[in-house]
Amino acid sequence: MKTVNIGLLGGGNIGCGVWTLLQDMRQDIQKRCHVDLRITKILVRDINEPRPCALPPELLTTNPHDVTRADNIQIVAEFLGGIQPAAMYMQDAMAHKKAVVTANKAALATEGASLRAAASANHVGLHYEASVCAAIPVIGAFKHSLQANRVTRIMGIINGTTNYILSEMAQHNKDYQQVLAEAQRLGLAEPDPSSDVQGRDAAYKLSILASLAFGGQVAVQHIYTEGITGVTPEDILCGKDRGYALKLLAIAKMGEHGVEARVHPALIPNNHPLAGVNGAFNAVHLTGHACGDMTFMGKGAGPMPTAGAVISDIINAAEALAHLYIEEESQEQALSMAEDWQSAYFIRILAEDEAGVAAVFAREGVSLASVEQSGEGTGGRVPLICTTRPASERAVRAALENLPPSACSVQSVIRVES
Amino acid sequence: MKTVNIGLLGGGNIGCGVWTLLQDMRQDIQKRCHVDLRITKILVRDINEPRPCALPPELLTTNPHDVTRADNIQIVAEFLGGIQPAAMYMQDAMAHKKAVVTANKAALATEGASLRAAASANHVGLHYEASVCAAIPVIGAFKHSLQANRVTRIMGIINGTTNYILSEMAQHNKDYQQVLAEAQRLGLAEPDPSSDVQGRDAAYKLSILASLAFGGQVAVQHIYTEGITGVTPEDILCGKDRGYALKLLAIAKMGEHGVEARVHPALIPNNHPLAGVNGAFNAVHLTGHACGDMTFMGKGAGPMPTAGAVISDIINAAEALAHLYIEEESQEQALSMAEDWQSAYFIRILAEDEAGVAAVFAREGVSLASVEQSGEGTGGRVPLICTTRPASERAVRAALENLPPSACSVQSVIRVES
Repeated sequence: MKTVNIGLLGGGNIGCGVWTLLQDMRQDIQKRCHVDLRITKILVRDINEPRPCALPPELLTTNPHDVTRADNIQIVAEFLGGIQPAAMYMQDAMAHKKAVVTANKAALATEGASLRAAASANHVGLHYEASVCAAIPVIGAFKHSLQANRVTRIMGIINGTTNYILSEMAQHNKDYQQVLAEAQRLGLAEPDPSSDVQGRDAAYKLSILASLAFGGQVAVQHIYTEGITGVTPEDILCGKDRGYALKLLAIAKMGEHGVEARVHPALIPNNHPLAGVNGAFNAVHLTGHACGDMTFMGKGAGPMPTAGAVISDIINAAEALAHLYIEEESQEQALSMAEDWQSAYFIRILAEDEAGVAAVFAREGVSLASVEQSGEGTGGRVPLICTTRPASERAVRAALENLPPSACSVQSVIRVES
Repeated sequence: MKTVNIGLLGGGNIGCGVWTLLQDMRQDIQKRCHVDLRITKILVRDINEPRPCALPPELLTTNPHDVTRADNIQIVAEFLGGIQPAAMYMQDAMAHKKAVVTANKAALATEGASLRAAASANHVGLHYEASVCAAIPVIGAFKHSLQANRVTRIMGIINGTTNYILSEMAQHNKDYQQVLAEAQRLGLAEPDPSSDVQGRDAAYKLSILASLAFGGQVAVQHIYTEGITGVTPEDILCGKDRGYALKLLAIAKMGEHGVEARVHPALIPNNHPLAGVNGAFNAVHLTGHACGDMTFMGKGAGPMPTAGAVISDIINAAEALAHLYIEEESQEQALSMAEDWQSAYFIRILAEDEAGVAAVFAREGVSLASVEQSGEGTGGRVPLICTTRPASERAVRAALENLPPSACSVQSVIRVES
């Protein structure tokens, strides 16, 4: 049987998960995949730091070159997090003819083009299933199962922290701040939650997914990104009463005017496959011209689900080593990005005058499907819920800007997706 | 660019789908996958038969050897349906060093071991994504994404015809016979629907999935199979009133006592990911020890979804041709099959005496969670709905056999899964 030596960059939660799962599954993998996988070196920040699991001290190093340049290592698996030095280490490993497996969405979303170019130039594999939605094999689906499809749309719940927060807010009618604090206590949100709650984490993942699905670069800085910090229990209730669930959605569409890519809170009908995805679960819904609609759902984070994806990629990389591995020439042309998109909107406004509001929307070409008064007015203003027909984002924004502040105030604007 | 020639076995719905989709996607595939795929020969039953699409007459043949033995063909794709002569033709193609792609669940479920052995002996690939749930890449997930998982359970809605029938019965409170006739008129059920409605089609697919998931042979004749022909609107309503959906489930579990594999109607709680899978959609829910719960959902049938999976497999086969393709030694030991399993049950009974019924169950060690009287009695008997606690199938059957026919009659027995 072939032996493949593996070096790990990172010995924290994911590194320990990979170590533990590989010890557990080593014999099964030998039997099923005819390869003996051995971890021979692990880069850590500090050898004496406490760790989630016991790692053999003789495997630990603080010198990255012991992993990226070791003659006896064939595959380097990286889970340092953050863009640098992770991307630099991966480049170094590929320059030294190692296949690279990574769980690092930030490095991949920002340095993906140069990492793929390095893989191609060095004829080594670059595998990144674990970088998006951990255990859910959505990268594998795009690479190996959907090649005969023109994917026209991706829509996903791809951040577990925000989905947990929104699910708790919806179920217990609680405030954002209150649920965030609870999630932090439970270890479900980071001490600094900004990357999750501001939508950046989801934008990284959407950039990776959309680039793969549409066959070109969808840069993270071109993704419109709006987080959940402004979502109120009233927004959620307002949707719920009308048969909708409020989710942080990551959406990418390939349309006539280019690619449209955005991350923002949105309402989806209760019978949509994503509406029932609650708690820390993730899901990706996609549409292909041959396959139609398809949904993948599962655990999008956690040491074990992530370790499972990393080891699967290590096995795929090891199988590829058996032949001369030639990474496809990477197709890194930037895709043209759409500057506008269509959506329906729920808009909650306190206004003196319903007709005046409707007139402003009409002037911008935004047609209202309904205007309801919800509850009692105060100070001469009444709370209105306006539902638009599908309208251009740009026109809706223009209308909102043109509402006279002397006569009304906008309380929330939420897109409706289906 | 490399050119790969493909021969098709079958020029009906799927064959025409593959032809059409490949013409549509040929340039995209050249660009993305660096391979030019050409269909050079198509086996048909009768050259002059009417067909769903126009196929170039010079490609058609009625001699299978023109496909399976042609020197210039590297990949043979089969969609004849039925076990023979399909399996024989695939054997012949592999003996002549062609990689084989198949959408044929019946051939694979019954002749899978010998087909995999032939692939291994001839060092050619055998690809069968399209044989289970068409576009949903569940075979690919088991092969290339879940290698670091011990899969403990598969639970699927893997027959679109029966799911359509049950969905319609549930939504419109209609009889099985009435909905079946409508489905036949709409082309959603075959003129002879027996393979679908008796659960045989689902059992074939479960055999393929479970064999792959558990790494050994789960023979179709060892799968307990019960169809939907006995399901009544009352059964569905009885579940609905209590928060359950009635589905034809295919279930395989790897437990202490071996593999348990069964296809039968079952109730699942409304918040289960499979409960909302309606109409002709398919879904597979699985549990792995590292990945946790995961669900794949999509179109499980139809010429285009199936053609997408076939062409994806053709591309994967073509990429494998670039190296010397060595199929893993197939692990065809038969797995030990469990002879009993646990489930909760909804049992509707007309009985003279509630206490007498409960006593019979108790004698067999089956504990009842609740007994409700539903509606008025007639002729000295009252309708009871008994819900058992999780109990052994064998014990429940023994109890049902021991109910005195003079004092009660069993109207329906439905397992509850979650």
